[in-house]
Amino acid sequence: MAEYHGLSQIFTTTETSLYNNLFKSPNPPFHSPTALILEISPNPFPQTNHSTTTNFVPIIKNNYNFDNLEILDHQLETYRSKFNDVYVAGHVLVYPSYNGFFEKPGLFLDQMFVRKCYRGMKFGKLLFSVVAMQAEKMGMGMVDWLVADWNEETINFYEKMGAHYIPEYRLCKLYGDQLQAFGRKSD
Amino acid sequence: MAEYHGLSQIFTTTETSLYNNLFKSPNPPFHSPTALILEISPNPFPQTNHSTTTNFVPIIKNNYNFDNLEILDHQLETYRSKFNDVYVAGHVLVYPSYNGFFEKPGLFLDQMFVRKCYRGMKFGKLLFSVVAMQAEKMGMGMVDWLVADWNEETINFYEKMGAHYIPEYRLCKLYGDQLQAFGRKSD
Repeated sequence: MAEYHGLSQIFTTTETSLYNNLFKSPNPPFHSPTALILEISPNPFPQTNHSTTTNFVPIIKNNYNFDNLEILDHQLETYRSKFNDVYVAGHVLVYPSYNGFFEKPGLFLDQMFVRKCYRGMKFGKLLFSVVAMQAEKMGMGMVDWLVADWNEETINFYEKMGAHYIPEYRLCKLYGDQLQAFGRKSD
Repeated sequence: MAEYHGLSQIFTTTETSLYNNLFKSPNPPFHSPTALILEISPNPFPQTNHSTTTNFVPIIKNNYNFDNLEILDHQLETYRSKFNDVYVAGHVLVYPSYNGFFEKPGLFLDQMFVRKCYRGMKFGKLLFSVVAMQAEKMGMGMVDWLVADWNEETINFYEKMGAHYIPEYRLCKLYGDQLQAFGRKSD
């Protein structure tokens, strides 16, 4: 993903940092950075009762046909989950956000990713609507995210879903040596 | 501010929502939306010991001369704080953020505002460096914010301070009826 966005030079994520930032928080889901995993399987998922300690109930859809999973996905083994015959097809990464102009807080959508062999199956739309529904469910007022200006197809996809494209804002980012320099300042 | 950015039509903030979102959080400062207030006074601020229950120690600078405060600021009474002879000159609004490409989480700077009569006194730079120092102090790896593309003077100011301007990203925002529509969806 960092390569795709031409941002390899800023990529510093490690397996440990991902684990610490996403899966070790004492906060319930969506109250700190949270990853939702899109899993697929050739077998139907059971509609079991899920833990009530979290404020997110897994969304199960058995209306896809994955009989030919091995032909479709040549990297199945790499993406095998801890459950039998369950594989990771994508993910979404969100965290709580706030905007001083809005009455209610929101969710910031930092990453949405569907693996190449699973594209064109409306999984992107599914992930996006899960985030929007979750925000709505939590009484939040917005979902924000950034899109690259050259990615017209994706911008159209977002606008079709009812998102407002706000072209005037640009991202500024202070990091690395420049950020550390501030930490050393005394005046 | 919303007017300045041409966003009055999305402005839904109320006094109650600001209070609930910014000042009622059970989290310590910088672990949820947090406002830092820039206060000025014609009298020196005492260098007292501050509460140790927060992870932010007020930064006190007595090297400004505000003898002629009443001449400078015609709206003093409106901006009087709860302390005697102390007035609000600006604020900054931040919340914790995360980026999947970075090892460490960060702070998102949602608002930075200095009242008109106090501009040109380097208060903007002061507020900005307080945020950067706080991020650095908390072991964070970045400070992110958005800037309007027509605001060249401000973009130059940020770049001078060491920020990276990333021109390719555009903001998308789902809110209002469009967000509520997702909440009602069942498939």
